[in-house]
Amino acid sequence: MKKFINSVDRLIEESLSGFGRAQADLVEVHFNPTFVKRKGRPRPKVAVISGGGSGHEPLHVGFVGAGMLDAACPGQVFTSPRPDQMIAAAHAVNGGRGILFIVKNYPGDSRDFHMASEMLEIDNVIAMVDDDVTALHAPHMTGRRGVAGTVLVEKVVGAAAEEGWDLHACKALAERVNKVSASMGVALTSCVVPAGGRPSFEIADNEIEVGVGLHGEPGRSREPLQPADAIVADLIDAILSDLAPRPGTEVLLFINGFGATPLIEQYLLFDSAARCLDQAGLKVTRSLVGTFATALEMAGASVTVCLLDREITRFWDAPVCTPALRRGL
Amino acid sequence: MKKFINSVDRLIEESLSGFGRAQADLVEVHFNPTFVKRKGRPRPKVAVISGGGSGHEPLHVGFVGAGMLDAACPGQVFTSPRPDQMIAAAHAVNGGRGILFIVKNYPGDSRDFHMASEMLEIDNVIAMVDDDVTALHAPHMTGRRGVAGTVLVEKVVGAAAEEGWDLHACKALAERVNKVSASMGVALTSCVVPAGGRPSFEIADNEIEVGVGLHGEPGRSREPLQPADAIVADLIDAILSDLAPRPGTEVLLFINGFGATPLIEQYLLFDSAARCLDQAGLKVTRSLVGTFATALEMAGASVTVCLLDREITRFWDAPVCTPALRRGL
Repeated sequence: MKKFINSVDRLIEESLSGFGRAQADLVEVHFNPTFVKRKGRPRPKVAVISGGGSGHEPLHVGFVGAGMLDAACPGQVFTSPRPDQMIAAAHAVNGGRGILFIVKNYPGDSRDFHMASEMLEIDNVIAMVDDDVTALHAPHMTGRRGVAGTVLVEKVVGAAAEEGWDLHACKALAERVNKVSASMGVALTSCVVPAGGRPSFEIADNEIEVGVGLHGEPGRSREPLQPADAIVADLIDAILSDLAPRPGTEVLLFINGFGATPLIEQYLLFDSAARCLDQAGLKVTRSLVGTFATALEMAGASVTVCLLDREITRFWDAPVCTPALRRGL
Repeated sequence: MKKFINSVDRLIEESLSGFGRAQADLVEVHFNPTFVKRKGRPRPKVAVISGGGSGHEPLHVGFVGAGMLDAACPGQVFTSPRPDQMIAAAHAVNGGRGILFIVKNYPGDSRDFHMASEMLEIDNVIAMVDDDVTALHAPHMTGRRGVAGTVLVEKVVGAAAEEGWDLHACKALAERVNKVSASMGVALTSCVVPAGGRPSFEIADNEIEVGVGLHGEPGRSREPLQPADAIVADLIDAILSDLAPRPGTEVLLFINGFGATPLIEQYLLFDSAARCLDQAGLKVTRSLVGTFATALEMAGASVTVCLLDREITRFWDAPVCTPALRRGL
């Protein structure tokens, strides 16, 4: 295992310590239990909290700040955070208007956030994200997975909460953004979980894993490597079959790098996907390209399409000031 | 070679096409000759232009925008752009107060930017960046290399130009920031140049390349993989030997990922380097952590320390609005 690391046991703590110091103008890092919160006192607004296993950075800790998340709870690598982290985070950012938990649809995350939700004595609701269109029938899955679309849900709902929307309106908006967002990803290589020390899966030099999840877990199929345009056309097909948008619809196109895929390739994917959407009669009016929802150093990328309306567009455009996404503040 | 690509010949053009479309609110991409410019008409200010081989993204095209670069000229992967690109870019952004070219100290870049400078009929000067402290005596080198410190030079000088500083003051500031900035990097893996199709160098599972350049070219030494703290201490030693700062000096600490190294490791490196600087009696008051100056999908990272004064700090803090760095605009 070739990583910048001192010991597997201290990896998350040392990394979060560096994160807290480097981003001290925006966030505060708390330990025992561990969570990252927006700097300063709680605001009189719905508090938006997310979390999940570490190894997906900047998701979620990199999106804590004005206009997005009030707190994030990082677990160990690819391991759900514990309910006591979520409860401590909720108390730290509670502004008296309730807590919205945004949770990616993985069994561990779902179970632990629901447990925290029940134990928490503050008014709270959960919004699940399950934007992955990969049809999975694995026995350990509880339905579609939450992947890169989570970034869009956190941005849009974070802006609504910042504007003063109430708890149930925020939850409804999260569910609406989730419903009009669809993602699918492709892995070129595996990643290495530090505690394991070896690649999560084997893949040949001429193969890609289509429909891969955010942990490098299996997808729809193992296929031969093809030109980017062919890979993208396949992903866009699956996404548009799921969303079934009317021609002329305005969309946000999000290319997300999984870790090791360079920007030069991500922008090439954007070009290719945008041409597919043009041909489908859709209007790409908003975009996001970058390494935002990752699986450690896995090479690969996902495509997310979000159908826009005036409200979602306005909240997408709203100011945001977080370590990983800054605009207009 | 496992990349998202259609053909090696069209890689840069397709990628820049996607970049121009995704970032259409900030930049304009021109082809034949190829350059990226800040959106809109030239401003009545010193125009700051950089460029270099592609494969280092977001450097330089990702730093085009208000408060940083007016234009960037991308070459083919790891290949200097041509003088005609630089001349076309200069004409496109000339605001009547002269052109400052910021150039990383590599032989091809230096030669071609100097050629453009001589041919260009607009008042212009060149500021070279050579922040890499790795002592190299290779016959093909023309001295220290320009690496991640280039990001700091572009940010600080871009802010000064935006504020209305004249051409020679901007050049002097660029040289001053370069002089007080020092970098050194470590590679864990190689990268694959698309036109070559194979790893640029071989490296064993237990080895690291210390002092590596931005193209994966050899560094100071091949050494065994060690805990992150030991690697960082070595880099900080080399950097502080070069800068010889007075105790109590305020510094900017910049951890730069080379491509495949996850943020979780980059922040761990920040934590480690910040502790080293604490012990050296320096004050880390500004920070930057991220994948900014890359060698395609190479795993590894560099540490840059920049000694701050009030002027450099003020320009570092100034608003900036580019695809890869946004703050306060």
